[in-house]
Parts: sequence; structure tokens; C-alpha cells
Amino acid sequence: LKLFTTLRDDLQGNVTAIKGPGGKWMIPPDAKESMDQSKIGLKGPLKTPIAAGHPSMNLLLRKTFDLYANVRPCVSIEGYKTPYTDVNLVTIRENTEGEYSGIEHVIVDGVVQSIKLITEDASRRIAEYAFEYARNNQRSSVTAVHKANIMRMSDGLFLRKCREVAETYKDIKFTEMYLDTVCLNMVQDPTQFDVLVMPNLYGDILSDLCAGLIGGLGVTPSGNIGANGVAIFESVHGTAPDIAGLDMANPTALLLSAVMMLRHMGLHEYGKKIETACFDTIRDKKVLTKDLGGNSKCSEFTADICRRVVDMD
Amino acid sequence: LKLFTTLRDDLQGNVTAIKGPGGKWMIPPDAKESMDQSKIGLKGPLKTPIAAGHPSMNLLLRKTFDLYANVRPCVSIEGYKTPYTDVNLVTIRENTEGEYSGIEHVIVDGVVQSIKLITEDASRRIAEYAFEYARNNQRSSVTAVHKANIMRMSDGLFLRKCREVAETYKDIKFTEMYLDTVCLNMVQDPTQFDVLVMPNLYGDILSDLCAGLIGGLGVTPSGNIGANGVAIFESVHGTAPDIAGLDMANPTALLLSAVMMLRHMGLHEYGKKIETACFDTIRDKKVLTKDLGGNSKCSEFTADICRRVVDMD
Ligand SMILES: CC(C)[C@H](C(=O)O)[C@@H](O)C(=O)O
Ligand SMILES: CC(C)[C@H](C(=O)O)[C@@H](O)C(=O)O
Repeated sequence: LKLFTTLRDDLQGNVTAIKGPGGKWMIPPDAKESMDQSKIGLKGPLKTPIAAGHPSMNLLLRKTFDLYANVRPCVSIEGYKTPYTDVNLVTIRENTEGEYSGIEHVIVDGVVQSIKLITEDASRRIAEYAFEYARNNQRSSVTAVHKANIMRMSDGLFLRKCREVAETYKDIKFTEMYLDTVCLNMVQDPTQFDVLVMPNLYGDILSDLCAGLIGGLGVTPSGNIGANGVAIFESVHGTAPDIAGLDMANPTALLLSAVMMLRHMGLHEYGKKIETACFDTIRDKKVLTKDLGGNSKCSEFTADICRRVVDMD
Repeated sequence: LKLFTTLRDDLQGNVTAIKGPGGKWMIPPDAKESMDQSKIGLKGPLKTPIAAGHPSMNLLLRKTFDLYANVRPCVSIEGYKTPYTDVNLVTIRENTEGEYSGIEHVIVDGVVQSIKLITEDASRRIAEYAFEYARNNQRSSVTAVHKANIMRMSDGLFLRKCREVAETYKDIKFTEMYLDTVCLNMVQDPTQFDVLVMPNLYGDILSDLCAGLIGGLGVTPSGNIGANGVAIFESVHGTAPDIAGLDMANPTALLLSAVMMLRHMGLHEYGKKIETACFDTIRDKKVLTKDLGGNSKCSEFTADICRRVVDMD
């Protein structure tokens, strides 16, 4: 029984993109097969090789498995000080289209256009995901983030679908806000936000902004959700090649992503245990990696968390 | 001699858009004439009437006078507490194209595309403006903000022009950063940034985010710069119709925009005086409008600033 597939750094060989038949980039057959079987992936940071035409590994995975919802809970971590407390929000990003369509043209010399593609289907799908998520996670409001004052047709379509879906979730409060206003209000008082849903690029921006509020990508989990139970959970920070092999990395983001994965699989109790142990270790401040303000190695930090998990039983 | 044109709220009649020959929206002839003469405008918040097809007044002004650079200095104000101190940066936003091209199509039912237009000329022009601004304002670095990893051709072109222009300004440090990374780093430590230059939509977002760091749109000045000395300075907050006529508004953003205007006209000494008086009043905390944490009326706050200006002479 394979519970989940680990998707490791290309340094370790299993998910560097390869050129398939017809010159199309694809992920290696063994990683693809494993994912098709287990449906669930836990992914470490991947380096996109600097080669002409090589696609972003992240984008390739999203495309291959139609991972349409990028979900990032941003929750303040007790004991890890930032200028903000009590942040408790979730960004839900449309993950397949929008500004990421990849369609671009040179019109005439010196004039380029990029196409932002918004479809009714993808907009409805992500709106439904956001409201379902809110309902299943005891959250009370969903905010649609848009610039329909400027992109009246594309963001207009996205917004219309959100409104329609909102009609069918009377238990969840629905609001809509301009992206610029959200950014402004976010840094002034993030506690006013709950679930936020938005097109691809806005989600790219806003999810990083929100991660920054609670301490950065080193402590922020992420999930990419597809249809029919397919999902890949990942830490979204880089590979940090400068500290590779030095036992210095902070595993929190990957660990909390694994916790998200366990919850997604219905293994709530296991998820809760690991999460509690991790937060306890951080709150305790005795065994912390360098970037968290401590002097411990990655292995020591992890051992402290494991010890707590064992002690719970 | 007309030094500058005041562009007031449409409630006061002078810059509501009107339909010109051929049904094209335009600003009223008297406002246009006055601007053509003085070249410099000081603009209060304008309300875009909710009428089908009515264009945003802000966008119409940018277009009418080819105001290609939107400049917003964000500087921490002593005595006005936010989670951040020592913010001192300037966002320079390309103000004429990009996602604001207004070109959108329905491809088939349920599929919409918006076109982001990036040109070599506009990219070079804004990059040059940013480097000139840095040099003339004793700033040491310019960061180009982009998503050329995703929009390889359009943001790629923008970035290439920034790089080319950077080559000719050896005294100014040049860096380039992804928009998402900038947002993340911005909320973690804004003091690392100096001058930032970027395409239209990214500037819309980032300028509001940065305004949030120093206290919001109520205290953030803004300038829209065109060619040949044409420029409009404006407070970018809304019209706040709920407090209209109640003598409660905070005039700081408009006042600081006027200060930017004076500097733009070479009247540095006058600008400095008003700015100092305004900051002194805020630091003093005795006469503040409600939104700044005080109990004074707009007229009292303004009178306190005026008194200080007079006392300087
Ligand atoms: C690596 C990059 C292609 C990606 C994106 O832009 O979506 C990243 O920023 C993310 O948020 O996962
Ligand atoms: C009012 C709106 C059209 C405008 C924009 O999106 O550019 C505003 O947000 C701004 O930043 O000046």
C-alpha cells in the first residue's frame, strides 16, 4: 500500500522534467505512475534547471495533475515573533489559468502581448472549492479578490462566478474587494481576513505577502488540490543550495505541509499530533534552527518534535 | 500667471468626464485648457460616476496627458505609529499600458482573454525615469519588479529595458526581483528597499501595500508624471462621501502631494517648509484629525500647520 508519493529535488533524480515524445516536457514516468497510484504527493523544493525552454517544475506538476487550487493557510505561530499577531487566514489561488496561460506574442517589433485567460469553468470550480473549504474548516467568510474595475471582462467573469457560487452557500459570508485594497488592508490589519479566493497571479502575490506576515516561506505550508482526491503538498521555499548537506535547513514548512496532507487524507488525529509537537517545539524556543533564531541543527529540531509526538502516546 | 490647475471632485463640476464628438469620453474643455496652459495639476479625489461605460476619471486623466510615471514616496512619519519604522522607499509605476490596456475579448462563451501590452518604448521610458529620479533624489538603488519567470516575453521585455538603462547609470545600484518575493520581503523588512520600478498592475498593488506600511492612503502623496513638464499630483484615497462637509477629512495626503508638486516645479524651499510643518504637527500629537488618532477638525489641523509655516519666516 502506497499512501503517498514523495517528489524530491531533481538533485536526487526523481522529478527533473524530461523531454517526451514530440519534444514535450513531462515528468519522469516513475514519478507519474507513483502519483497516479497514490494520488497524493509530498514535494520538497525543486530546482528548475537553467536550460533553454525548461519549464518550471512547479508549473509542470500543476499542469500534469490539473492541480487547480493552491491553498495556503497563514496562521500566526506562537513564540515566533513578527510585527503581526493573530493572523489566521487562508489564500485560495486559481492554479491553472489566468496570467499563467503561457500565451504570448510579439505583435510588432518592440510590442509584446501576454494573454490572461479566464474561463467560466475554472472560475466556478475555484469559487466552489473556496466555499467548500470554508464550510469544512469552520471558517465564516470568503472574500473574492479582483481588479474587475480594470479587467472588466476577465476579472468580471471571475467575480460573477464567485457571486453565483456564494448564492448557494448562505452560511458563509461573501465579500469582494480590489486586490490593491486587500494588500493595503492586509498590512494594516490582517486579522480582518478569513478565506480569500482569487485568480492565479493575484494568488501568487498575496500568498507570499501573507506568508511574510507570519514569518516567511520557512514556516508556511501549501497544498495544490486537483479533482478526485489528487493533491500535492509542498513547502514553497527554495532549495537553498548554499546550505545543502549542512544539516541546517528548517523543516517546518515541509512538516506543516505534511500535516495538511494528513488532514486531506482524513487522518486528522495524526496531523494534529505532529502540528502540536512542531508548534510546541517552536514556542519552547530551546531547540530551534538558525533561521528561527536558535542554534540547533535540523536533525536536533526534528528529533525534538519527534520526541514530543512519541510522548503524546 | 497660472502656476497650477486644481482638478476638483466632479461634485464641484470641473472634471467629470463628458462625452465628446464621436461618443469618446473626455475631460471638460476648461479643465483641459487650464492644464495645457499650466502643465501642472493638483487633484483632489475624484468619484467615478456609476454609469455604464463611464471610464475611471483617474485613468482618463492619465491617458489625456500621457502621465507615464506614477510616483509614490512612502516614508515613515515620526509620531504616527505603524508596525514599521524607517520605511523610506519610492514606487515608480508604469502608468499607461500593461494590464491596463483595456483590450479584452470573449473568445467563446465562457472564455475571456485580457491582453497585457508591454512595449519597448514605454518600458525604456519608465526605466529611464526611475534612474533619473534616483539620481536626482540622492537615492542609491533601483529594483525592477517583475514576473519574467512566468510572462517571459512581456515582463521579459520590460526587464531587458531596465537592464539596458541600468548600464548607463553606473552610479545607481540595479537589482531585479520577482513581484511575489518583493511582497514577502516588503512586509518582513521594508527598509531594504529604495526605488522600485515596475509595470502598471504590479505598481497598483505594490504602491498600496507600501502606503499601508506607513499609515495608509490618508498620509501618502502621489505624482503622475508626463513628458515636457506635465504632471498631476494627487491624494489617492477615496472621496469619503460619508464625511463630506463635516470638516473631518485628513488633508495630509493632498498636502504632501502639493509638496511633491512644489518640488517638481523646483520650489524646493517652499515644499520643505510645508512638509516640515505638517510632520511637526503630526509628531506633536496635539492637533490631529480623527483618523490620525486625534479629536481635531480638518480646519484646526490645517490651521496648526499654517501657523508653523508662518512661524518659520
Ligand atoms: C516558482 C514559480 C513559478 C511559482 C509561481 O509563480 O507560481 C512560485 O512563485 C509559487 O508561488 O509557487
Ligand atoms: C481607481 C483605480 C482605477 C486606480 C488603479 O487601479 O490604477 C487606483 O487603484 C490607483 O492606484 O490609482
